[in-house]
Amino acid sequence: MKINGKDYRSLWFEDGKLIMIDQRKLPFELSFYEARTLDDVVFAIKEMVVRGAPAIGCAAAYGLVLVDRKELDTAIRKLSSTRPTAHDLFYALDYMKKQIENGKDSLDAANEYTDMIIEKCKKIGEYGEKLIPNDARILTHCNAGALATVDYGTALSPIRIAKEKGKNTFVFVDETRPRLQGLITAWELEQEGIDYVVIPDNAAGYYMEKGEIDLVIVGADRIAKNGDFANKIGTYEKAVLARENDIPFYVAAPISTFDNKIESGDDIVIEERKGEEVRKIRDVEIVPEWMNVKNPAFDVTPSKYVTAFITEFGVFKPNEIDVVMKAHQRAY
Amino acid sequence: MKINGKDYRSLWFEDGKLIMIDQRKLPFELSFYEARTLDDVVFAIKEMVVRGAPAIGCAAAYGLVLVDRKELDTAIRKLSSTRPTAHDLFYALDYMKKQIENGKDSLDAANEYTDMIIEKCKKIGEYGEKLIPNDARILTHCNAGALATVDYGTALSPIRIAKEKGKNTFVFVDETRPRLQGLITAWELEQEGIDYVVIPDNAAGYYMEKGEIDLVIVGADRIAKNGDFANKIGTYEKAVLARENDIPFYVAAPISTFDNKIESGDDIVIEERKGEEVRKIRDVEIVPEWMNVKNPAFDVTPSKYVTAFITEFGVFKPNEIDVVMKAHQRAY
Repeated sequence: MKINGKDYRSLWFEDGKLIMIDQRKLPFELSFYEARTLDDVVFAIKEMVVRGAPAIGCAAAYGLVLVDRKELDTAIRKLSSTRPTAHDLFYALDYMKKQIENGKDSLDAANEYTDMIIEKCKKIGEYGEKLIPNDARILTHCNAGALATVDYGTALSPIRIAKEKGKNTFVFVDETRPRLQGLITAWELEQEGIDYVVIPDNAAGYYMEKGEIDLVIVGADRIAKNGDFANKIGTYEKAVLARENDIPFYVAAPISTFDNKIESGDDIVIEERKGEEVRKIRDVEIVPEWMNVKNPAFDVTPSKYVTAFITEFGVFKPNEIDVVMKAHQRAY
Repeated sequence: MKINGKDYRSLWFEDGKLIMIDQRKLPFELSFYEARTLDDVVFAIKEMVVRGAPAIGCAAAYGLVLVDRKELDTAIRKLSSTRPTAHDLFYALDYMKKQIENGKDSLDAANEYTDMIIEKCKKIGEYGEKLIPNDARILTHCNAGALATVDYGTALSPIRIAKEKGKNTFVFVDETRPRLQGLITAWELEQEGIDYVVIPDNAAGYYMEKGEIDLVIVGADRIAKNGDFANKIGTYEKAVLARENDIPFYVAAPISTFDNKIESGDDIVIEERKGEEVRKIRDVEIVPEWMNVKNPAFDVTPSKYVTAFITEFGVFKPNEIDVVMKAHQRAY
């Protein structure tokens, strides 16, 4: 990813510590959070210093570099309990456990895992780019960009690659209440020189109905065997609206997001986060303390609304998941 | 409406001035805005000191009390240009012009108009209440309560009357970005002792899909002859989601909201408001100045998503509008 014209990853390991772009401070301030202990990493994932399913997986992998070999299982348990919905977290921890138990150096393993994720995201971009016509107007929800995946992004990767190939695009960015991750998507697009506009989540349907949106691309936190998937709260609404308006709806995610242990979306645990995220923006109270609020962090979109999944192995339809998973899920 | 147990209207004329609950300050502060001149009223409507289609109509009616008879046409022009979407504004000004030109005292006319609106809202509540089963879980969007209509509300009136009749209800309140009018709905419900929870707009679909919402009631700003209607941005999304989940979707509005001059939603002018409303909440910048934003204030929901309209003359389906309008629109 570009930041002020320079190449960056959203997180990396250096001098015995994990350095992460602090996503809580963006888009207002670019600052870096340094994790020196496992507890720092646990905090960073829970509090969303780092967020986005693939990036959480990488942060967790590096988290294991910060502990002794004999603390491995305890550390994996701690990291597993940070956030329940994203599948990559568990995938990354599985990967790391195997590698370390096979005698690999933990830093080498975490670096390899992260390089692999970045490579997958780039591939997602290359396959996804073919689905984007020149001058396409694209809706995205939340942030499935480089920040969420260390580099390239999932949903944003095809848009980045389209730009590299000289295509024009225009991105409608849902602001994505309550945490406003749309603003970090806009920040990434601004850095890349890609045209965009931020809209209230309520306005996405309006622009779809007016015929101003050609396709939707979102990321995913966990995908069931039948193609139902969990993603940031509000994704389900956009999927229904896209189908109602005959707009293609794509889900971009690496194979690590597919969970072959669950049959359908009914089995996905939805994280309920604290009400304070709804009540406050930038430390300012916008909903009074005495009002009841709810804050489900994700929703589940049934597979029937998905036009296709964009993965590092190509683009395929929900009914092809089974075959693709059998072929590729054991690729690591 | 109740405020701390006392009966109030959201606006009234007293001692030569129009007094309005300042809706910009709620739910944090109950304060009153006093309009002593026509320009004060114009400001109050434009800046949303007063908002909600029927309440805007009443405020405009009282605005004409503040000008001389010879300034009537100029004043009507000024008030007409405050906000383009709500039909009640134009309906109220028409009503007032006729009454004043027929020699009626302007204050008497404005009081009569306002009493009429309140009576209509009460009737909407009485008809709508029959559609609410005991223990119903109801979704509403924006504020179509007493604040928006001087008293009772449109969408909230059936819920108030249900409570009076001893029914239990639970209201899911969309926060309604960008202006968060859901919070003033929550404030009204709290005052009335009706159970509710505030949710991010993105979460409404989630609760519908989970089967936790039994019906949706919203207000309307303008309804075309074919039943397409304009309401707060995001309403269209909820309507599509309701139909997708087989949830009844009701639109509560007085006949003054029906515009017999327009055939369909295509003819409704959608107000685009300033980006600052998206950028700032409670004077705190949440979207940086350098990001592009869009702020359409309303959307149009096609009539096919409407289960029924709840009016002061009863409950009817979109295909019955023509008959109902012929029978009642000239009732004043």
